[in-house]
Amino acid sequence: MTTLPDALVLDRLFATIAARKGADADTSYTARLFSQGPRKIAQKLGEEAVETIVAALAEGRDRVIGESADLLYHLLVLWAETAVAPAEVWAELQRREGVSGLEEKKGRTQ
Amino acid sequence: MTTLPDALVLDRLFATIAARKGADADTSYTARLFSQGPRKIAQKLGEEAVETIVAALAEGRDRVIGESADLLYHLLVLWAETAVAPAEVWAELQRREGVSGLEEKKGRTQ
Amino acid sequence: MTTLPDALVLDRLFATIAARKGADADTSYTARLFSQGPRKIAQKLGEEAVETIVAALAEGRDRVIGESADLLYHLLVLWAETAVAPAEVWAELQRREGVSGLEEKKGRTQ
Amino acid sequence: MTTLPDALVLDRLFATIAARKGADADTSYTARLFSQGPRKIAQKLGEEAVETIVAALAEGRDRVIGESADLLYHLLVLWAETAVAPAEVWAELQRREGVSGLEEKKGRTQ
Repeated sequence: MTTLPDALVLDRLFATIAARKGADADTSYTARLFSQGPRKIAQKLGEEAVETIVAALAEGRDRVIGESADLLYHLLVLWAETAVAPAEVWAELQRREGVSGLEEKKGRTQ
Repeated sequence: MTTLPDALVLDRLFATIAARKGADADTSYTARLFSQGPRKIAQKLGEEAVETIVAALAEGRDRVIGESADLLYHLLVLWAETAVAPAEVWAELQRREGVSGLEEKKGRTQ
Repeated sequence: MTTLPDALVLDRLFATIAARKGADADTSYTARLFSQGPRKIAQKLGEEAVETIVAALAEGRDRVIGESADLLYHLLVLWAETAVAPAEVWAELQRREGVSGLEEKKGRTQ
Repeated sequence: MTTLPDALVLDRLFATIAARKGADADTSYTARLFSQGPRKIAQKLGEEAVETIVAALAEGRDRVIGESADLLYHLLVLWAETAVAPAEVWAELQRREGVSGLEEKKGRTQ
């Protein structure tokens, strides 16, 4: 009997990513990203967001899956770089779950 | 005894979002987004990615948390819009977990 | 006899924009943007770039024209904000005109 | 006596770019971009916008100049790809010159 993969993969992946912070840049793509600093990591996040947009508008769902995975990976790297713990983002989303999205959005300064 | 929130909030949030597809646009921010179609949803994803970048480079970790939550919410809406199941993205990330990031990246075209 | 508009509109528009720097935020959209600072201006540039992408991939040339105009306007505001003179960017483009694009791109640090 | 470069470099550069449409992809970076199609061109525009944002927020004016030149170059390629003539964008900007920016912005749908 198999079960569907769930979102906990993100928590596991974050642990792997965070463990590579400070490692020799030659040992992994992740370690190299960290060595290039926050500007490069933020830039990569932006590039993957653009690729996800292009996939959604012009390339179909298979590409949305692949680009979303890239986007999430780089988002996790950015969290590790800026000392954000995933649980802090999950808590923020949980907090909003009880709030109607429309109200939530209205509550933000535009 | 409390436990830290985990990434499963994303699976729950996706279920809530998907349930709003096709609902009257006036009933929630999410329903309104769906009524505006994939271009608007993709555009919002791009805007939130930009805000996450700005937060990371110039505003500090509290804003990274908030903007990351916005980014993830709009990514889930885009998945629902393009008929992507979260489990498909988690499976893609799981598949990559076994692969060194550096190799993975090299294996991609461009 | 009429002549086609040319790119010099950008130099004129920049002069108008730069003159609004420091003006009361209530007097124009441009003055308000300056009052919100570089992060807001950079964010708007990113949003307009996303809208230009969406226009090009899914909305047709009329929308590309409108969104390109928005993008260029916000780029000029960003130049004024960061003390970049348009002539410095034109000089950079002129310098590259003599260089094959392919070589130029190869010459950049990736 | 020398004169400052002006925005007309964009009209000249566009002519050069447009002339490369349909050329062998190996002959220039521009020809290669055209051969990769609108999705790749739009993606590159997005990447350069992100790099311009990063430059403005974290790298200083010299980098803003270089990244702005990259952004403008890719915008011109996108115009050529989507059959937009530069004069159409200049006309749109000229039309707005007579309009207060604030009014203009208010006049747009969200």
